[in-house]
Amino acid sequence: MVKVGIIGAGRIGKVHLESISYHVKNATVVAMADPFMNDETESFIKEFGVEKIYKDYKEIINDPEIDAVLVCSSTDTHAPISIEAIEAGKHVFCEKPLANTTDKIKEIAEALKAHPEVKFQVGFNRRFDHNFAAIRKAYDEGKIGDAQILKITSRDPQAPPVGYCAASIFLDMTIHDFDMACFLTNSDVEELYVYADALINPGIREYGDFDTAIISMKMANGALAVIDNSRQAMYGYDQRAELFGSKGMVATSNDTLSSAVLSTVDGVTGEKPLYFFLERYMESFSQEVREFCDAIINNTETPVGIHAGMQSVKIALAAEKSANEGRPVKLSEID
Amino acid sequence: MVKVGIIGAGRIGKVHLESISYHVKNATVVAMADPFMNDETESFIKEFGVEKIYKDYKEIINDPEIDAVLVCSSTDTHAPISIEAIEAGKHVFCEKPLANTTDKIKEIAEALKAHPEVKFQVGFNRRFDHNFAAIRKAYDEGKIGDAQILKITSRDPQAPPVGYCAASIFLDMTIHDFDMACFLTNSDVEELYVYADALINPGIREYGDFDTAIISMKMANGALAVIDNSRQAMYGYDQRAELFGSKGMVATSNDTLSSAVLSTVDGVTGEKPLYFFLERYMESFSQEVREFCDAIINNTETPVGIHAGMQSVKIALAAEKSANEGRPVKLSEID
Amino acid sequence: MVKVGIIGAGRIGKVHLESISYHVKNATVVAMADPFMNDETESFIKEFGVEKIYKDYKEIINDPEIDAVLVCSSTDTHAPISIEAIEAGKHVFCEKPLANTTDKIKEIAEALKAHPEVKFQVGFNRRFDHNFAAIRKAYDEGKIGDAQILKITSRDPQAPPVGYCAASIFLDMTIHDFDMACFLTNSDVEELYVYADALINPGIREYGDFDTAIISMKMANGALAVIDNSRQAMYGYDQRAELFGSKGMVATSNDTLSSAVLSTVDGVTGEKPLYFFLERYMESFSQEVREFCDAIINNTETPVGIHAGMQSVKIALAAEKSANEGRPVKLSEID
Amino acid sequence: MVKVGIIGAGRIGKVHLESISYHVKNATVVAMADPFMNDETESFIKEFGVEKIYKDYKEIINDPEIDAVLVCSSTDTHAPISIEAIEAGKHVFCEKPLANTTDKIKEIAEALKAHPEVKFQVGFNRRFDHNFAAIRKAYDEGKIGDAQILKITSRDPQAPPVGYCAASIFLDMTIHDFDMACFLTNSDVEELYVYADALINPGIREYGDFDTAIISMKMANGALAVIDNSRQAMYGYDQRAELFGSKGMVATSNDTLSSAVLSTVDGVTGEKPLYFFLERYMESFSQEVREFCDAIINNTETPVGIHAGMQSVKIALAAEKSANEGRPVKLSEID
Repeated sequence: MVKVGIIGAGRIGKVHLESISYHVKNATVVAMADPFMNDETESFIKEFGVEKIYKDYKEIINDPEIDAVLVCSSTDTHAPISIEAIEAGKHVFCEKPLANTTDKIKEIAEALKAHPEVKFQVGFNRRFDHNFAAIRKAYDEGKIGDAQILKITSRDPQAPPVGYCAASIFLDMTIHDFDMACFLTNSDVEELYVYADALINPGIREYGDFDTAIISMKMANGALAVIDNSRQAMYGYDQRAELFGSKGMVATSNDTLSSAVLSTVDGVTGEKPLYFFLERYMESFSQEVREFCDAIINNTETPVGIHAGMQSVKIALAAEKSANEGRPVKLSEID
Repeated sequence: MVKVGIIGAGRIGKVHLESISYHVKNATVVAMADPFMNDETESFIKEFGVEKIYKDYKEIINDPEIDAVLVCSSTDTHAPISIEAIEAGKHVFCEKPLANTTDKIKEIAEALKAHPEVKFQVGFNRRFDHNFAAIRKAYDEGKIGDAQILKITSRDPQAPPVGYCAASIFLDMTIHDFDMACFLTNSDVEELYVYADALINPGIREYGDFDTAIISMKMANGALAVIDNSRQAMYGYDQRAELFGSKGMVATSNDTLSSAVLSTVDGVTGEKPLYFFLERYMESFSQEVREFCDAIINNTETPVGIHAGMQSVKIALAAEKSANEGRPVKLSEID
Repeated sequence: MVKVGIIGAGRIGKVHLESISYHVKNATVVAMADPFMNDETESFIKEFGVEKIYKDYKEIINDPEIDAVLVCSSTDTHAPISIEAIEAGKHVFCEKPLANTTDKIKEIAEALKAHPEVKFQVGFNRRFDHNFAAIRKAYDEGKIGDAQILKITSRDPQAPPVGYCAASIFLDMTIHDFDMACFLTNSDVEELYVYADALINPGIREYGDFDTAIISMKMANGALAVIDNSRQAMYGYDQRAELFGSKGMVATSNDTLSSAVLSTVDGVTGEKPLYFFLERYMESFSQEVREFCDAIINNTETPVGIHAGMQSVKIALAAEKSANEGRPVKLSEID
Repeated sequence: MVKVGIIGAGRIGKVHLESISYHVKNATVVAMADPFMNDETESFIKEFGVEKIYKDYKEIINDPEIDAVLVCSSTDTHAPISIEAIEAGKHVFCEKPLANTTDKIKEIAEALKAHPEVKFQVGFNRRFDHNFAAIRKAYDEGKIGDAQILKITSRDPQAPPVGYCAASIFLDMTIHDFDMACFLTNSDVEELYVYADALINPGIREYGDFDTAIISMKMANGALAVIDNSRQAMYGYDQRAELFGSKGMVATSNDTLSSAVLSTVDGVTGEKPLYFFLERYMESFSQEVREFCDAIINNTETPVGIHAGMQSVKIALAAEKSANEGRPVKLSEID
């Protein structure tokens, strides 16, 4: 049983608290910290039997009872807190993106080099989703042969308010799809080209951001790939992928609440996709932590290491560059 | 929080223990009893933090700390244990079938009349399944108009060993489908006719049992219904239903582990249905207990009462009679 | 090239005229007859290059140029005209049902015995439908093993006006499904039991007819089967079948005009089934005549002979008897 | 009834001959010409009742009986023959691509300007396919709102032999998809970027060609679009499209021979897509000629004019340029 401290009690921190308490047998949450901890949050946390509740995350890092920390704080603090925890000898599970620059990620990498006993995992939960895992499994088993074309469709159900995002669509939303592209083809990205626009809310152009994008990529293993993104699909969260190869194709469709189909004079109607990432990916949040704790217990490699965390940020930065400069960008250009 | 004692530590008892521990927030298991309790079972139970572990179920019934009991013992003891618990003022959740004869169920009914404060629920978990619930919801909302034709397909992935079952296919397997027929049409059964045979393993005819059946029924509300059963579908657990009415139809298909579809030179292949009832209906085991506990906490009616328990057994007995006598049997013939 | 005369210029006669002219390479229509032939019909027929247009069908039967006749007249004349044609040495393709009584069909059978050179086919076009043929093919290839359960869903998009039908639902509509049950299981029916009612239009009870039915059957080869019928599915013509066996199941769904699926805030909506039998089964009308002409040209057996014509009517009569008498009826009771 | 002469008796010429003879009521083929006309081809043509069979296409152009010509000769002769026919006052239906250079298409355009009475149509048959037409219809009806993302998947079942193609993949295969992109979004292309490679048969690189490509595009109306191409999908001809917009999405899937699905211990398997373009698009070959003849008869605009013919070639040339130069190419660069 791994004793876990969660740093950050925002939405994703609470998701992990609940998920671990109910569904993860090899972990238990013993402490939680948030600088904005208030009575409401505290009483929510207490319901799960967590007794150590702090404002200062250092209390967690200094607690000898705690084996591992989940870094669920704001993106700009991911790297410094991770590094502090690593240096304190805690195993670290850090939410994505690790940082908005590669420099900070390199610092994490260095800290990890200095502490080879520390397990480190990045929170790319979609790798643990039943559908995407099934694609990778079929690929690993040779069922589709050599990878040639990957297609990922990733569309959110609702655009965030204009000006809300600190980061670009690529660092905030597509980063998951970039990691998925690497995961599904088992390869890094070599080069990419982006068409992006503000078709849903032209106002976000002022912020230098986009809400609709098509990112085409050349993978290091030779496969071609394309991601299409939209911030607002009126029918809900659209999360599909297909991998085509020399022997065939494996494709997944959206999950729904039930398989019920209604046939009436108006047509034959099934349910919309599950609304958003909490509904769609809940089980994957449990599975990623289960495997993180297994790696700690068995002293094996974690399934999503620092390389994946770095790659995804580099790809996102390359995508920004391509969208802004209107030219293909090689990953080797991003330092 | 309802304090629960589970009587019976066989497969279904363990399912409830795990399901309540991990997924049911308004209940906690405080005791468990089984006449064959052994070290292995005891240590399994202890892992979930249950401290009171007995051989004698009466320890549970006499424990003033316990609010409710789950009767998960063998079918022949369902009625006597339920009655004892009712008379001790415990709320009772009893697995299906309540009994193999109507007399015993009448005794439960009488005990309940004498203890109107006791909440009683029958373990027809499929009513809480996302797919079947979606059919009933569409019907209740008037989307398909008046019910005219109900079709239920219910096929197990693997036949039990010959001679294994004490009860007939109708009392052991179809009883869930009979309850489902009543639930989906919101009606009792008036009359039925059965074609049944031993097409998978002719040897079970010696035991007076069947492994393949088509049961057609006239519902009390006028709808016609048909259930088809097989003990052995080579592609897995086949659990589908469709309700057709004056305005349209609502139909459900099987659940799978993932939505992945593989296209190769051999065809376009999706996954088989989830293997069996534990995989397929796990969430419904949690939901039925959640709603049972809600009824206790809020002092409201439970969602599956004694009437459903009696109806399903009567229908099963009528089905046996029809299969053996080769004639339509009215429910009113079953006393 | 088989020279064909069509007797009867109603809807189905015109369907065959157009289908043969456009799609059947081994046949040509040279004559058409109808007692109610008028200018409009005549000019319709002439467009297809047919020059011999008569009121009296005997002109066709006596025409030495004509190799084969299609009997598309009213049901009560099917048998006498078929017999006349057989005796004149013409090959005969007769629409279903051959007659409403078995006596008349026996007379056709006797005429055929006396003229073994004559090819005779019954118009059960659905046997030539791509979907149903695919089920039978999978069964013949051993892919599902021994047949155990057959399910046929057959629902019309619109009920005929009350009092319109001379024949019962079983002789008019279900007769196709009865033939399909025999075709898909490659077996005759041994016994059946029917629940039938007038749920759409109670007024048709006065005519002794039904609009909703569930027919369960024991096939001669041991398989169990069930047909469900409705005269009015609001979402269109519902024509599905599934055959379940010891190795697996093969099932078909409805055809649509396109595969387009619209996803909006209201759900994920596909097209309704093709409206009715002309839209749904057009290609099968061509294919049945192609194979009839092939049998003539190659002097081989036709694919749907007098036995199928007799069986289907016997099953329909047995179904009527079961519905009216409320008991299972053996086919051997129908003489 | 439009009297048609077909120039070119290769595969596509024969397809039109058969399609018009059997399925197109408003046209009749009266003449056919091919420089390599031989006995076998002649006898094939005669079976359809065509009496005028020539080696020299000028016989058709000079025949006053003929209203319209179908130019089905080799690509390099499309333009000169079309121009000769236009100047002779014949209506012209020309197969795609009109030419491999824009200059030749401009010459056709000039000939058309000089003969405004002549109807001219390009053979983009997929516009008349039931699935793609359904997407455009949904878009025209406003069901998906403003177009934002278009995705086209177009994969052939079998790669042509290395060195077989005179033209690039873009002019030979993708040209249909380019036209489809314009058709489905009802817009021209403004700019595109291509990733292309020889992943199936590296040998074709020597010929400067590719067999796998992802083409991303910015449409003139602001929508983003992506086409993915492969010369060899082991599961057959993969022809799908989806159009996503401000109100929702409309998507189509592949057509199959039947809807039969087989469930066994190996999985749940449906049929592969129809094999190739003749199986998949046969009906659209009839429909495009029907509408061409309607335009002649009613003196209305043809549905696919010279603009579409020019656009598709320009896009193909831009795609070649982008693939070879590794940069985005604006359509305005192609003169």
